[in-house]
Amino acid sequence: MTKLEINNSGNNNSDSNNSDTKYYKFDEAFDLTKASVEKLLVQAPHMVRDYTKHLSKSQGKFVRAKALLVCALNGQNQIHENAVHLAVSIEILHLATLVHDDIIDDSDLRRGNETLQKRYGKKKAVICGDYLLSLALRTLSRLKEKENYTEFFLPNFVSRVCLGELEQYSNNGNLNISTFRYLKIIRGKTAALFEGAFLAGAIFSGEEEKHQSQYAKLGRYIGMIFQLTDDCIDFEASEAEAKKPVGKDYEEGVITLPLIYSIKQDKEFNNNIKTGKINIEEIINLVIKFDGINFTKGISKGYYKKAGIIIDILEIDAEKKGKLMDILEKSYNGITK
Amino acid sequence: MTKLEINNSGNNNSDSNNSDTKYYKFDEAFDLTKASVEKLLVQAPHMVRDYTKHLSKSQGKFVRAKALLVCALNGQNQIHENAVHLAVSIEILHLATLVHDDIIDDSDLRRGNETLQKRYGKKKAVICGDYLLSLALRTLSRLKEKENYTEFFLPNFVSRVCLGELEQYSNNGNLNISTFRYLKIIRGKTAALFEGAFLAGAIFSGEEEKHQSQYAKLGRYIGMIFQLTDDCIDFEASEAEAKKPVGKDYEEGVITLPLIYSIKQDKEFNNNIKTGKINIEEIINLVIKFDGINFTKGISKGYYKKAGIIIDILEIDAEKKGKLMDILEKSYNGITK
Repeated sequence: MTKLEINNSGNNNSDSNNSDTKYYKFDEAFDLTKASVEKLLVQAPHMVRDYTKHLSKSQGKFVRAKALLVCALNGQNQIHENAVHLAVSIEILHLATLVHDDIIDDSDLRRGNETLQKRYGKKKAVICGDYLLSLALRTLSRLKEKENYTEFFLPNFVSRVCLGELEQYSNNGNLNISTFRYLKIIRGKTAALFEGAFLAGAIFSGEEEKHQSQYAKLGRYIGMIFQLTDDCIDFEASEAEAKKPVGKDYEEGVITLPLIYSIKQDKEFNNNIKTGKINIEEIINLVIKFDGINFTKGISKGYYKKAGIIIDILEIDAEKKGKLMDILEKSYNGITK
Repeated sequence: MTKLEINNSGNNNSDSNNSDTKYYKFDEAFDLTKASVEKLLVQAPHMVRDYTKHLSKSQGKFVRAKALLVCALNGQNQIHENAVHLAVSIEILHLATLVHDDIIDDSDLRRGNETLQKRYGKKKAVICGDYLLSLALRTLSRLKEKENYTEFFLPNFVSRVCLGELEQYSNNGNLNISTFRYLKIIRGKTAALFEGAFLAGAIFSGEEEKHQSQYAKLGRYIGMIFQLTDDCIDFEASEAEAKKPVGKDYEEGVITLPLIYSIKQDKEFNNNIKTGKINIEEIINLVIKFDGINFTKGISKGYYKKAGIIIDILEIDAEKKGKLMDILEKSYNGITK
């Protein structure tokens, strides 16, 4: 099942004004999305194929695509083919941002595999990321009846991701950053793409405009939770779970909330900052001493509750509600990686 | 004159099916494009403004935008507002590719100004380039009646630029590259964006589909000429003209046609290649000895003739023909920088 064209096993929706439009059940749509992304990576043009094939080995769990497809479920529990194209696009886009992220952070490993920048060098990684970005946008050209989707515009969310990245990089190694500022950074860096995915899904599901903003907000909250959970995992002992070494964020200069909070609790440590040279063991001990993880989970819990309320009030059937709750729970408990 | 909305001094075109559509004369459209690009750079969000303002200092001559606008002139010598939006988009896109190019080539100077990667570091330059790319694509959201322009899809051309860049980088320092392969690289790296600009212009001018491919071909030829002229300038003595030091391409590992040709003429030199350590003086002497510039200009002349024939056969008025010839001449003679 690798071609969108041959997968018309869903029923046509009577609401549609285009009888050629295909609809899919959730599992079909999700499988199709994964197969299409894989195909784009494995069958890329010769010049980039080595790199994209390498990336296909360390695919994640397609959280953004899954969220988009769940949101796109319509009243008949069917998903418009456009939602599948956009889910593919958003996963490729996410991959592009990871490739460029790894350059910024000097990362050697991602999901247990060597990063592109480590294996092939930063320079090739710059252009590979650009290629993936253009590939993501080309996928959008397959959307039918584009004129109906002017509300949703992907590059807008890409800009917000970039601005978040830049602000994070400007604060690289800054141990004095405020909680407020940190949350603002991850709202761009991570949550913007979730917001885009949820909003796009809502539009494709045929939700009225007044409800679309609820979906966008839900996406933003889940994106925040997703990042905060990730931040905690980096300080927790279970190395196998996150597939990256403990304290990796700090070693790359990325200062996350568990540490930001803990530092502010310790006057003495705060004075030592000026002298520099704080090793990773000291940092981990500090986070344990002041329970920075518990604080971070508390902030995450706040978003979790607000997200739950939105899911509650959405006028959708039990099945869709269940799937949204599942995404929320998994983001909160960190089992989406 | 900085807002598109306030510039409705052109006449409405009777062909239009949308009475709100604005049309501009060429000079108005070109001034508006330059002002809009400047505004986007100078008024960028706080996080990137330092970088984009820095870039605005070393703007080029808007060759791609000018080409697009000339091609977009309709039978009444007017330009549709969409062509202006796209001209802005293509210039910002071009700027994005320059920012990432300079990372790949380790360039310190561009048009006499320090590059972004030299001034702020490669990492920030990666994200700035991404931001500019997203900005270029956001500009496209201002196009009216998008459904009429499905033939033209910018990310397609961006992919081709990326593949050309990757192939060039893979051949970095490769003195044995063939002329054929080199021409294939610059067809992607440089000519793809020209092709996109000419094709877009033709579509906006209301040209029939059968003529649009002629415009695309013309764009490709002019793009090839543009790059080959640039390659020659790098070996010519007039440092002030190119605003970059002579032999810069070679020092960055970029092997261009004047050198590729000259090396193949010299058996003895060819054997020395294996021993490595060829300094820039030897390279320049070699190009002078075998007149690699004359050879390159000969190849360029071939494209020049083919481009001239297309301009001749296009069914357009003398004014538009004159403007297209002007772009061709300036690309050939290297006075577009």
